[in-house]
Amino acid sequence: MATSTTSIASDVKGFELADLGKKRIEWANQSMKVLQIIRKEFIKNQPLKGIRVSACLHVTAETANLMIALRDGGADVALCASNPLSTQDDVAASLVRDYNIPVFAIKGEDNDSYYSHIMAALDHKPQITMDDGADLVGVLHTKRKTELADVLGGTEETTTGVIRLKAMAADGALRFPVVAVNEAQTKHLFDNRYGTGQSTLDGILRATNLLLAGRAVVVLGYGSAGRGVAQRAKGAGAAVIVCEVDAVRALEARMEGFEVMSALAAAPLGEIFITVTGAPDVLRREHFELMRDGAVLANAGHFDVEISLTDLAAIASGPPREALPLVDEYDVDGHRVHVVAKGRVVNLAAAAGHPASVMDLSFAAQALAVASIASAGGERAPGVHAVAAAVDQEVALLKLASLGIEIDVLSDAQERYLRPFR
Amino acid sequence: MATSTTSIASDVKGFELADLGKKRIEWANQSMKVLQIIRKEFIKNQPLKGIRVSACLHVTAETANLMIALRDGGADVALCASNPLSTQDDVAASLVRDYNIPVFAIKGEDNDSYYSHIMAALDHKPQITMDDGADLVGVLHTKRKTELADVLGGTEETTTGVIRLKAMAADGALRFPVVAVNEAQTKHLFDNRYGTGQSTLDGILRATNLLLAGRAVVVLGYGSAGRGVAQRAKGAGAAVIVCEVDAVRALEARMEGFEVMSALAAAPLGEIFITVTGAPDVLRREHFELMRDGAVLANAGHFDVEISLTDLAAIASGPPREALPLVDEYDVDGHRVHVVAKGRVVNLAAAAGHPASVMDLSFAAQALAVASIASAGGERAPGVHAVAAAVDQEVALLKLASLGIEIDVLSDAQERYLRPFR
Amino acid sequence: MATSTTSIASDVKGFELADLGKKRIEWANQSMKVLQIIRKEFIKNQPLKGIRVSACLHVTAETANLMIALRDGGADVALCASNPLSTQDDVAASLVRDYNIPVFAIKGEDNDSYYSHIMAALDHKPQITMDDGADLVGVLHTKRKTELADVLGGTEETTTGVIRLKAMAADGALRFPVVAVNEAQTKHLFDNRYGTGQSTLDGILRATNLLLAGRAVVVLGYGSAGRGVAQRAKGAGAAVIVCEVDAVRALEARMEGFEVMSALAAAPLGEIFITVTGAPDVLRREHFELMRDGAVLANAGHFDVEISLTDLAAIASGPPREALPLVDEYDVDGHRVHVVAKGRVVNLAAAAGHPASVMDLSFAAQALAVASIASAGGERAPGVHAVAAAVDQEVALLKLASLGIEIDVLSDAQERYLRPFR
Amino acid sequence: MATSTTSIASDVKGFELADLGKKRIEWANQSMKVLQIIRKEFIKNQPLKGIRVSACLHVTAETANLMIALRDGGADVALCASNPLSTQDDVAASLVRDYNIPVFAIKGEDNDSYYSHIMAALDHKPQITMDDGADLVGVLHTKRKTELADVLGGTEETTTGVIRLKAMAADGALRFPVVAVNEAQTKHLFDNRYGTGQSTLDGILRATNLLLAGRAVVVLGYGSAGRGVAQRAKGAGAAVIVCEVDAVRALEARMEGFEVMSALAAAPLGEIFITVTGAPDVLRREHFELMRDGAVLANAGHFDVEISLTDLAAIASGPPREALPLVDEYDVDGHRVHVVAKGRVVNLAAAAGHPASVMDLSFAAQALAVASIASAGGERAPGVHAVAAAVDQEVALLKLASLGIEIDVLSDAQERYLRPFR
Repeated sequence: MATSTTSIASDVKGFELADLGKKRIEWANQSMKVLQIIRKEFIKNQPLKGIRVSACLHVTAETANLMIALRDGGADVALCASNPLSTQDDVAASLVRDYNIPVFAIKGEDNDSYYSHIMAALDHKPQITMDDGADLVGVLHTKRKTELADVLGGTEETTTGVIRLKAMAADGALRFPVVAVNEAQTKHLFDNRYGTGQSTLDGILRATNLLLAGRAVVVLGYGSAGRGVAQRAKGAGAAVIVCEVDAVRALEARMEGFEVMSALAAAPLGEIFITVTGAPDVLRREHFELMRDGAVLANAGHFDVEISLTDLAAIASGPPREALPLVDEYDVDGHRVHVVAKGRVVNLAAAAGHPASVMDLSFAAQALAVASIASAGGERAPGVHAVAAAVDQEVALLKLASLGIEIDVLSDAQERYLRPFR
Repeated sequence: MATSTTSIASDVKGFELADLGKKRIEWANQSMKVLQIIRKEFIKNQPLKGIRVSACLHVTAETANLMIALRDGGADVALCASNPLSTQDDVAASLVRDYNIPVFAIKGEDNDSYYSHIMAALDHKPQITMDDGADLVGVLHTKRKTELADVLGGTEETTTGVIRLKAMAADGALRFPVVAVNEAQTKHLFDNRYGTGQSTLDGILRATNLLLAGRAVVVLGYGSAGRGVAQRAKGAGAAVIVCEVDAVRALEARMEGFEVMSALAAAPLGEIFITVTGAPDVLRREHFELMRDGAVLANAGHFDVEISLTDLAAIASGPPREALPLVDEYDVDGHRVHVVAKGRVVNLAAAAGHPASVMDLSFAAQALAVASIASAGGERAPGVHAVAAAVDQEVALLKLASLGIEIDVLSDAQERYLRPFR
Repeated sequence: MATSTTSIASDVKGFELADLGKKRIEWANQSMKVLQIIRKEFIKNQPLKGIRVSACLHVTAETANLMIALRDGGADVALCASNPLSTQDDVAASLVRDYNIPVFAIKGEDNDSYYSHIMAALDHKPQITMDDGADLVGVLHTKRKTELADVLGGTEETTTGVIRLKAMAADGALRFPVVAVNEAQTKHLFDNRYGTGQSTLDGILRATNLLLAGRAVVVLGYGSAGRGVAQRAKGAGAAVIVCEVDAVRALEARMEGFEVMSALAAAPLGEIFITVTGAPDVLRREHFELMRDGAVLANAGHFDVEISLTDLAAIASGPPREALPLVDEYDVDGHRVHVVAKGRVVNLAAAAGHPASVMDLSFAAQALAVASIASAGGERAPGVHAVAAAVDQEVALLKLASLGIEIDVLSDAQERYLRPFR
Repeated sequence: MATSTTSIASDVKGFELADLGKKRIEWANQSMKVLQIIRKEFIKNQPLKGIRVSACLHVTAETANLMIALRDGGADVALCASNPLSTQDDVAASLVRDYNIPVFAIKGEDNDSYYSHIMAALDHKPQITMDDGADLVGVLHTKRKTELADVLGGTEETTTGVIRLKAMAADGALRFPVVAVNEAQTKHLFDNRYGTGQSTLDGILRATNLLLAGRAVVVLGYGSAGRGVAQRAKGAGAAVIVCEVDAVRALEARMEGFEVMSALAAAPLGEIFITVTGAPDVLRREHFELMRDGAVLANAGHFDVEISLTDLAAIASGPPREALPLVDEYDVDGHRVHVVAKGRVVNLAAAAGHPASVMDLSFAAQALAVASIASAGGERAPGVHAVAAAVDQEVALLKLASLGIEIDVLSDAQERYLRPFR
């Protein structure tokens, strides 16, 4: 742990990294043009004046720009990591040193540190929570129930978190309103599909340097993130096989020209396997046993549960060998099985996460959601709330404008035609 | 009008065409494997025993198979056309001669015949209506109000119709329940995207024989049908420009690598323009005036309102010349503007409509929707009703099975994980 | 046979078709902008003044424009068909009636008529021959040897023909120079890849109306035409399998993401099979026996030898049934095998052949090759001659200009750099 | 410079890196299955027994496996770098420490070191040279002419080198035979297209983490490498613009659906520019001045001459700022221009170069070419020699087999048909 040269509380790896972190924050900022506009409005109108916000998000250059925007809108912000392997230590250091934002996150931290950092973020006594996987909400509702009363609301960034929150809400357990930013069109259509699509393959390439052209790539899961991965793998020349439990999605995959089959049928055919389902044990003993020598496995889902390392350890002839810095090699009955980044989310563990221009969209929606919670002042009912369609249109229009793109507007006559019986 | 050799009422072009029609019905049947299965169940269980059904649908080989399935399920069916140009006269003849189903439809019929055929279908005193554009429902609610009482419910096949129905429902005007088959995932994801995508380009090629590779194709509208057209045009090597009024959709189009701009900016760049918006006057005077010599215009939307022929006639130097059997050439200030099939829906007017295997999905959902209306027996409330998600899964699973594709099923542990707080 | 209303010799189907033929010739002309420019030069400079030209080409609207350009350059032209099924009878009629060009071609003519038409074209005593499959050259070197002396040279349009000619040249049998237009880059890169790619699928769709999305399409042959077909099938959403005997090409196909396997392995997997190899019996008994019920077979190669109808007839339970006008259905051990257009080249037999804008490139090269033969005046040695690279550049530049595209030119310094040791 | 712990001559960065280097060599070996087979034959037959080989190649894990195969075939090998920025220091260290192969290469070496390392490789007194850019050949023909007599022949890996060698040969200056491995189909079709395509984008992503989807990417040069880059950028969702001086290639690009225009027209439209032409000053003052704020420039060509840093320095308001470790930012009239890796070949300077499985093809051809030179024993004439077509077929077949792919073989009857006049 570094000794901070500032007076603010923090736990980051080392301030000697902060120079690089600052460069990366500024570089990301260039591509976050919608957030730039929102930040300017925040500076002017101070919609978060004095509000305490605790965020449990991937600590990346893009998140840094979101934190800075909230801070500039008047918020008192604290940040911890939503994944032990995704923290960019240089960014964390710069956020503390250069932007006076408390950060509790060190890449590779163990489970204890991970939870102590969540506790540190909650010690900030948040009025608004921001989650990427519902960990702050989860801990607040179990170990820190007394603090629930202060919370006006929260936001949730990812599918996995929304599933948890909806389950809580269905059970009547969720005690404050949470805006499901994940379900904003500008989030899930873009971030999941284009962000995950590119950055997942980017992570695999950085870790393995494999050629994708002509390679058999199995994508397990064909939700919005999975189809992004499948589309990009096809665009890179791979022969893509899709496995999916939902029949409609499976049929969609087929209509896009993908091979579609069960994971068991795909196991002996694939050279690279990418899980992106949200479910545990998607790849397990029965699949490992059938794989070709040299198969490479990576996970693009939120949690590191999709590839069963337990099963792999149980059937391997010994402990894994480090084949490359981010690749573990297991010997299974004489054939090698390679796991990238220990099955953790590969675009963050082996690459730089979603590109800034796509995070711009969901973080613009995040910033507007935080502002809406602040302005609602606790009047919204507990439960999972959608982002308004108008917010989606606004964010998208700002993004298009930043790309120099102008679109048509319906005439009054056209509007009327589309509602003919009114 | 042909003299029927059968005793049933009908108005079709001529029974000398029926041999070819029968072949086409049988050919389509081969690709409609889900409907085949449903038909077998219908034959066994007679869920429509004695129910009168009037259908106003495109009279094609695929529709013929749907009619036959309903008939075999016990229904008393009558059919008219939902578009004056889409009728396949040979299919209509065979339906009457070989399958004893009353049909009132002749390709190219004028407006009066079109409506008299709708009236003939309503003279059948339907208990269930089936629409593709809400014309039966529209006429029932205006000119035949006295017959509304008999109607148990209806189905609607297309986006345009659902928009009309929702407007009616919003105004409290809709008097019986209508199942929006269009909104079934197995309908709108597949039929709109893959059916319209392929058949629209097919229609344009049959009419014009133009090379798509390297050609500037402007797609106006990026809904589910528009993105199908854009994707297929790109797959055919065209340089595709997308115009769209919804900002989120416009941004999606850009993220797929398309050029995105306003129609006015696209007008001087495009070589082929395809409207697929649902709105009127999408291409109009201001666009025509800017187009290159030889521009080709086609409409893939339901109604022939998207390209303003009124404007074109107003600015052309004279009446249009027939450049090819399905192509009218207007002279606008010395440059030629070509309109395919007079702006009517091009995949039906110039090609054979959606391929049977994609219609299989929506017509499977149609058949199940009709059965559900019959079994509900009038207990469902007036309004627009969704197709149940389970129906979607069933239809998709049957389709996958017909393709020889098996998919995974979630284990109990995985199901539990995805609902962690239960 | 029609009685000509003109005084010129001809054998065409009927002049009542000529009006439509004229429209189609004019429509094609719009897309043949390079040929338009060459024709203008020909009119001015008369490079073919008094030269007799016999052409054995597909009798289509595009060929008509080539013939007209040669005629306008001073040539005395006669035309017969290079394939009995590819003749557009309306175009043939218009060429005779409206353009005074002798044509001997009727769609569907039998073998005797086919060869008598070739003889009629040779009765024209050509000084220059134009072939698409080397039939004129073949007959001249076997049955009409005495006329060889008059021939200054010839042109050959297709791969199959060039293979025959090179074999003749290798044996010392070829008696005059032939320009292999097929090997011009502007021919084989564009016509084979983009022309065949689009028009082959177009032909299959017109004949069968099948959905390509999600369908298993087997492309046999991955030469320049085969890869065009494979690329377009992929672009249409098909799951494409490639079969190829050349290892380098097979590897290329794999690197593009296609499944690659032997024809025997593909036989039970495919739903549509397309041969495009130039070789005979590519699909034969051993493959037919393994195919799924309903398999559809089409040929995109020059001759109707790639699908063995002999084998199919031998193993079928009876004669084929006409499933659709252009589709024959064979019953093979209880499963149906469908052959499109009796295995003849499907883009001509079931669609309108290559689009005009791609034929523009090879026919521009044809016109320039004919002019070069005329100007060489018999000084060129017998054998197969290449089209000069400068001709390719000129044709391509004219085409780009017609598309409104300007490209860069190397500076002198860049030219020097690329030849550093000079 | 590291002190070697072995007795062999070398100049590498440090042996503490060798452990990682060994892992990367072994990892690459897994994907180099054709080279593995050749190596086994080499071990058995010792075709290079006692032959001195000097290689000037990118010092990467793949090259290491080629060197090891040659060594195992009996050769006495020395290696230096063909590009000062492409050396993988860990691989270099392992080659010396673990494989006893002399290496002279340090990443980032200055020009003097670069040439002194070439001299060290030539001090090895090669009988066979291996080049990637013709530097060994160049120096031998200028500064070390006395040693030319010993040389049996050489190999050349890249387009740029072949251009230099052909110019030398045309001038009668080339004094020994060089096998142009670059022109082997298995090299240029695969390495240039698929290797460069993937690794160039990989390098840009590692350096910048930009999202490619929806971004305007300008690819300058549409040779085999350029089209690989353009294809992959399109596959990643970019809107790709192609600039090309050859009209036929430009037209091909257009037929693939790319926007095609001059570099000057593209300058204000692009967000990322990638040069891959082989020519100098492809991007220069006139282009920089028109670019958007934030434009990113990278070079995928062999030499760092394609982006004129001289012009950029001349018009920038000051020296470049390091925006990110591999990105320099120039201020040009108030807009930022970013240059990746100082314009050096980006796939090596910012990523790990071509993936091993594609290098497997060209390095298999390299190994076979070296063996053929050794067996020819100086009897081949000076000049640039092609790789035999049979070698291409053999390499491709081995590669297909390693992928588990079997292909068809022509029957005798088919062979005869394809040569009908024999």
